[in-house]
Amino acid sequence: MKSYSLGDIASRLDLRLIGDPDCQIQGLGTLASANTGDISFLSNPSYLGQLANTSASAVIVDASQTDAVPTNALVADQPYVAFAYVSQLFAEQPEVVAGVHASACVADTVSIGEGVYIGANVVIEEEVEIGANSSIGPGTVIGRGVRLGESCRLHAQVTLYHGVRIGSRVNIHSHAVIGADGFGFAFDGERSIKIQQLGAVLIGDDVDVGAGTTIDRGAIEDTIVEDGVKIDNQVQIGHNCHIGAHSVICGCTAIAGSAKIGRYCVLGGASGMVGHLMLADGVKISAMSLVNKSISEPGTYSSGTGQMKVADWKRAIVRFQQLDSLALRVKELERLIEEEGIAR
Amino acid sequence: MKSYSLGDIASRLDLRLIGDPDCQIQGLGTLASANTGDISFLSNPSYLGQLANTSASAVIVDASQTDAVPTNALVADQPYVAFAYVSQLFAEQPEVVAGVHASACVADTVSIGEGVYIGANVVIEEEVEIGANSSIGPGTVIGRGVRLGESCRLHAQVTLYHGVRIGSRVNIHSHAVIGADGFGFAFDGERSIKIQQLGAVLIGDDVDVGAGTTIDRGAIEDTIVEDGVKIDNQVQIGHNCHIGAHSVICGCTAIAGSAKIGRYCVLGGASGMVGHLMLADGVKISAMSLVNKSISEPGTYSSGTGQMKVADWKRAIVRFQQLDSLALRVKELERLIEEEGIAR
Amino acid sequence: MKSYSLGDIASRLDLRLIGDPDCQIQGLGTLASANTGDISFLSNPSYLGQLANTSASAVIVDASQTDAVPTNALVADQPYVAFAYVSQLFAEQPEVVAGVHASACVADTVSIGEGVYIGANVVIEEEVEIGANSSIGPGTVIGRGVRLGESCRLHAQVTLYHGVRIGSRVNIHSHAVIGADGFGFAFDGERSIKIQQLGAVLIGDDVDVGAGTTIDRGAIEDTIVEDGVKIDNQVQIGHNCHIGAHSVICGCTAIAGSAKIGRYCVLGGASGMVGHLMLADGVKISAMSLVNKSISEPGTYSSGTGQMKVADWKRAIVRFQQLDSLALRVKELERLIEEEGIAR
Repeated sequence: MKSYSLGDIASRLDLRLIGDPDCQIQGLGTLASANTGDISFLSNPSYLGQLANTSASAVIVDASQTDAVPTNALVADQPYVAFAYVSQLFAEQPEVVAGVHASACVADTVSIGEGVYIGANVVIEEEVEIGANSSIGPGTVIGRGVRLGESCRLHAQVTLYHGVRIGSRVNIHSHAVIGADGFGFAFDGERSIKIQQLGAVLIGDDVDVGAGTTIDRGAIEDTIVEDGVKIDNQVQIGHNCHIGAHSVICGCTAIAGSAKIGRYCVLGGASGMVGHLMLADGVKISAMSLVNKSISEPGTYSSGTGQMKVADWKRAIVRFQQLDSLALRVKELERLIEEEGIAR
Repeated sequence: MKSYSLGDIASRLDLRLIGDPDCQIQGLGTLASANTGDISFLSNPSYLGQLANTSASAVIVDASQTDAVPTNALVADQPYVAFAYVSQLFAEQPEVVAGVHASACVADTVSIGEGVYIGANVVIEEEVEIGANSSIGPGTVIGRGVRLGESCRLHAQVTLYHGVRIGSRVNIHSHAVIGADGFGFAFDGERSIKIQQLGAVLIGDDVDVGAGTTIDRGAIEDTIVEDGVKIDNQVQIGHNCHIGAHSVICGCTAIAGSAKIGRYCVLGGASGMVGHLMLADGVKISAMSLVNKSISEPGTYSSGTGQMKVADWKRAIVRFQQLDSLALRVKELERLIEEEGIAR
Repeated sequence: MKSYSLGDIASRLDLRLIGDPDCQIQGLGTLASANTGDISFLSNPSYLGQLANTSASAVIVDASQTDAVPTNALVADQPYVAFAYVSQLFAEQPEVVAGVHASACVADTVSIGEGVYIGANVVIEEEVEIGANSSIGPGTVIGRGVRLGESCRLHAQVTLYHGVRIGSRVNIHSHAVIGADGFGFAFDGERSIKIQQLGAVLIGDDVDVGAGTTIDRGAIEDTIVEDGVKIDNQVQIGHNCHIGAHSVICGCTAIAGSAKIGRYCVLGGASGMVGHLMLADGVKISAMSLVNKSISEPGTYSSGTGQMKVADWKRAIVRFQQLDSLALRVKELERLIEEEGIAR
């Protein structure tokens, strides 16, 4: 188990320490769940009530809350961000050791940087380049001509199709598929004729891709995911999409082809976006909402009805389906009252 | 092909038999589709009309329907449950034979119980424990320190990340991913800083997990799936969720992080649940509905509008977007009529 | 890089050529993005304005637009379909060479046609038949008794469960799972009892299946996908569904069990369909809409509300939840005015 003195943590993160620098920290916890030896944080003021009773051995707070901390404190401008950096000190992922597992099938023309780990049963086809210190999990398949940057981590059973290009410090979780054919067919009146998908997928630096996510290759030009984009599990990104830097796409979101998403957007879980639309920088879409028109101004957008008890909901949807006639009836009432001389 | 006498089936399931115990049963069928040699069932009374004309050789019914059966009958309190047990007699899944396939990569420190089958190209990392009579399908990858109980079945190409703990009699279908990182980042104003996901995933006994489903590991504490939970395909369960025993989660449902779902809940297909919400025991969510507030009472809840022809729908959604002003106009009409003296 | 003379392309596709048959074509492009050496097309008249300024070396148009083409033209009844065929001339997918990779695990009783490619780490169980010229990507697992037709392409890490039968010229992308158990349980009041899924999956000719898509095996009878159906990524098709020929199912669509979809239907992205419902031939469902009643007439159907700014949307959903009482209040106003003698 890892252990750091609080003074060591303060020094690594360049944070002010109030209290005992020799206090040993062995883990992390929420204010409510932390035990002795844990470090916690206060970011959302609504948890302030939990601060007084926490069992944590240290709490990260901003300068305005130091008086309220009943134990050791680290002072940060952004306590949650500092907590994120602390969490990285405690990463427990199994160490990977450089080398190529004997069972891996690696083509002769593959270029492998220093410090690279290639796991059991990995398959790497011709002319692939893998940057230094990258790690390829067991069973992953990398198609011909892929280029992968430095310090990437592909977990077990990822699939990269031919020609995909990926930057550095990119994490891709299991069963993600990058570069499968976009969904392009021309209908001739009787059947669907396949349009070959001749573009690639370009992924920038510091991108995360969740488990089971699919990012299709472009039809003619490339599908592009810019630097710092974070993509959760089971997201679908269609061909020729362009995702702006540092945008966040939550789980199960479906983005149709040729969508253009700005920088610093947030797409909530299970949201959807019709093809060929654009989102300006800084647009947020709430969970399970559908984007069916382009959005040119930042802000939060939603669709849907909110949940109801089923009996009430059944009445409401009947009324929803009569809504146009209801509105016309109200207009007629207004006209009658207006014309019959009832004063406004 | 398997064959059982009806008397044998009645005896195995402890059901009353009316008719010929020597009748041979070779398969199952619905009332409408069954042929000679098949056994069928009547559970939903709306299918009663099909009973008279069924070609089945035997029908499972409850005691109130025995007179209506035109052939051999088995009498059960819960005919559909009895049919489920009968179906298990006819399971056709290929037999698996204990042993480790020569192509599997199994670390030296793995503990393997009696009667375990490990298929081709399986990868099992250090310090894994696999209980007796479990079966690991081809290409599955099991990370360091995983514990798997007895009589589990992992189909082909499942991925279990390090430290996942799974009970007994758990079935996991292909391309399910258990224990990938939860989606946790702290935004520092410019970019998203990863929060290490230090929890695990705990799965109880008698759980089923569908193909392509993802269950993320916890951020600090564990993600928990209790006994008897049944999860369909392509479900996403975020970090730190807690799914109560015997709940049922239908396909393509998206559950955001830290959701707490009670016992005996049913989430309909493609439903969604916002993070940090709670469902009481016995809550049912209808298909493609979004849970955006916690629910403290059992019952069925829904959202959405119901389908319409597109031209009608386009008018309705315009009106939906004017709904607040429409309601205000109705209020004004009521005021006018009230104040102008039209009697109620 | 591939290159064709325009005359060669015209001849292969049997199109009329206006201009220089010796013009060399090396690639494809949209009207706006094409460079010298590219061929483009005009299908949607709204792009007519881009035609005059295109840098393409040739454009495929219909007979009515030939005068507007500023460069070489190919004349087609359906320019987009012709473009699809041209795209196939430029397919860049890595060539696969017939043969079985040394690392593949192929059972003795497998029948392999001529010209078949079997990639690294493929696992093929007993009694499988693979038709001529089919290609099986690395890491794919094929269960006992599967039959696969001619000229199929399974990409890397596909899973076919036992007994699945697939026609010819079928493409299946990575991490698709065909034939996993349908989601069938009988609830006995305390727990869910598994109903064995004894049917198979039958897939016709010329079907495409996207990455991460799951198609479950039938409970008693088979799940059926007819000829020419095109299925995008991360689609879920439940047990006993029947998908009619040439229907198109866009990404992330969820289809519950026993749904019956006609021919030439189109299900938009992330749409959903409740189980046991039917769609007539030629029904279209718009993106993220839920089918909750059977549809007997062709046409387009939708559900949902359309996106709004979140503040407006919050007011609208409050009103939605009051919609039944609002409608009753309008009715009361109408009655009052009617009974108080205000003339219509």
